[in-house]
Amino acid sequence: MKAVMVNKPFEIEIVEMEKPKIEKDTEVLIKVKAAGICGSDVHIYHGTNAVATYPRVMGHEIVGVVEEVGEKVTKVKEGDRVIIDQVINCGECYACKIGRGNVCSNLKVRGVHVHGGYREYITAVQDDCYILPEDLSYEDAVMIEPATISAQCLSRAEVTEDDTVLILGAGALGTSILKIARLTGAKIIVADIFDEKLTEAKELGAHYTVNISKGDPISEIKKLTDGYGPTVSIDAACTKETLPLLLDVTGNAGRVITMGFSEELSSVTQLKITAKELDVRGSRLQNKKFQSILDLVKDKKLDLKGSVSHTFNFLELQKALDLIDKKDPTVRKIVLTF
Amino acid sequence: MKAVMVNKPFEIEIVEMEKPKIEKDTEVLIKVKAAGICGSDVHIYHGTNAVATYPRVMGHEIVGVVEEVGEKVTKVKEGDRVIIDQVINCGECYACKIGRGNVCSNLKVRGVHVHGGYREYITAVQDDCYILPEDLSYEDAVMIEPATISAQCLSRAEVTEDDTVLILGAGALGTSILKIARLTGAKIIVADIFDEKLTEAKELGAHYTVNISKGDPISEIKKLTDGYGPTVSIDAACTKETLPLLLDVTGNAGRVITMGFSEELSSVTQLKITAKELDVRGSRLQNKKFQSILDLVKDKKLDLKGSVSHTFNFLELQKALDLIDKKDPTVRKIVLTF
Repeated sequence: MKAVMVNKPFEIEIVEMEKPKIEKDTEVLIKVKAAGICGSDVHIYHGTNAVATYPRVMGHEIVGVVEEVGEKVTKVKEGDRVIIDQVINCGECYACKIGRGNVCSNLKVRGVHVHGGYREYITAVQDDCYILPEDLSYEDAVMIEPATISAQCLSRAEVTEDDTVLILGAGALGTSILKIARLTGAKIIVADIFDEKLTEAKELGAHYTVNISKGDPISEIKKLTDGYGPTVSIDAACTKETLPLLLDVTGNAGRVITMGFSEELSSVTQLKITAKELDVRGSRLQNKKFQSILDLVKDKKLDLKGSVSHTFNFLELQKALDLIDKKDPTVRKIVLTF
Repeated sequence: MKAVMVNKPFEIEIVEMEKPKIEKDTEVLIKVKAAGICGSDVHIYHGTNAVATYPRVMGHEIVGVVEEVGEKVTKVKEGDRVIIDQVINCGECYACKIGRGNVCSNLKVRGVHVHGGYREYITAVQDDCYILPEDLSYEDAVMIEPATISAQCLSRAEVTEDDTVLILGAGALGTSILKIARLTGAKIIVADIFDEKLTEAKELGAHYTVNISKGDPISEIKKLTDGYGPTVSIDAACTKETLPLLLDVTGNAGRVITMGFSEELSSVTQLKITAKELDVRGSRLQNKKFQSILDLVKDKKLDLKGSVSHTFNFLELQKALDLIDKKDPTVRKIVLTF
């Protein structure tokens, strides 16, 4: 079978690879039908993803059709259209034992530490396969995985309808978080530096928007919360300035969620965390969030359509990456087809 | 009645004050019998406590005997020996509504924002009064309040017997945390820069100790946890170096507890918090922890005796503070008697 390999940064090759075989009786063989290109794939291509290893078949937003199942597989059957969980964990370490396999100390992410979806076939244990809703195309279904990242962050924040949620950053990540956050019943403030993004956030259901490049963003946000500050603040911008800003603005007993992987140093004081008893919580990947997103899609509460701007055959990965590198503003999600 | 007032930093005066009256039918009038001097009282005296207001009757470690009760009081009766919760909250704000009254947005702490225990009589609602064990002297009973601070920090950390807890700092706070942490069944590592403090920590039940002024503390601590890192790290030292150190050393899905009130800037990276999905949680004062500490004392699981090194009559507060300011090494806890 064919696969597209990143041999090393900026070197992509179409290779012949042995078709994977079912090796455990709980495994499933899947013919890949679509795979999304994520910002982190671009980082692997650019050599700026600190955890990826080479050579690597990238792709962690993977949908396909079940071609064969192991003897003990009961969750899916031949012909089922599925999406694959990207997280592989050991089940043995402390994080796994307390149900936090997404930060397993022996974590392997498909397309990052082991080969991912930019190839014709892939295997996965049945527990990592989730059946797609009938009326969702393979191309749109790749958007399920990014939505799980947002679901993870909102679950780490333990958002309820009594919260006021500040989403800092209205790019692809912030917008995806907004779409799911509005289903919680919480009051939502979106902050960004671009008015046009804030207008879009308003259309998507943000109750308030704040342009933090104008005036005093902290007093502006506090005003919207009767002086208390948001009870949940999510960093979907992740610069070195954002964490200190969120520690300042968040109200007592609030949660501040980080999603950034930058090694840039931020200056913070313990005082803010202690005096308000804040919880500053990291959110990484997702922890068994596929089914909850699939349920939202099935119940018509979350619409994944309209985000894919371009499709390419997977053998044209180089072309797709070149388009991304051109910073063409028409590019939103690019999906590889098979 | 007599009270000792701090009119402004470094100015103490013995004053005549009206004896407080029961004003609500759920209130209790207490004749104060003993009150501890805490580091934060010394800060108020020195003018270095940012939240205190003047003139102020200090004292938040307050024990006494019930002299009179309001009509609806059922929890205590005349003659009961009690300790008083130092936290007064509004019950209305977000923090109060989610059961986190210790970080109430209208928080008042006895002896800090309102008059405390360095006076002959004090009133409190019955819910803020807790009955003392019979065999605990008034003087030793003032140690209950500091123990609640440790209980709060361990509850914020959600310590279970499956955890490995790192306590950074083996001073009065760290030692108090250690005494309660060892009751959880968790494995405990204590780190400090003084070998004599570490020896004491070992005697008090620490499983391992690490002198962080020698060698590479991070690899030393990781070695003690099979490379994983502690699953709970408590900052009982609170310098600007401690938070970055704890973010480095703590294992995946771990909790890092801050207790510092310093405004000094620490340099941290989001990466550590996100990649390991750490929870960095502040711990302030205590949230209804008196009964759990009283239960430990009654069950002989926690011994509060032996910490009080000096007692003074409350009218001699100036003398006691002068002794503390001399940095006399024989001073541990000083208790005012009445």
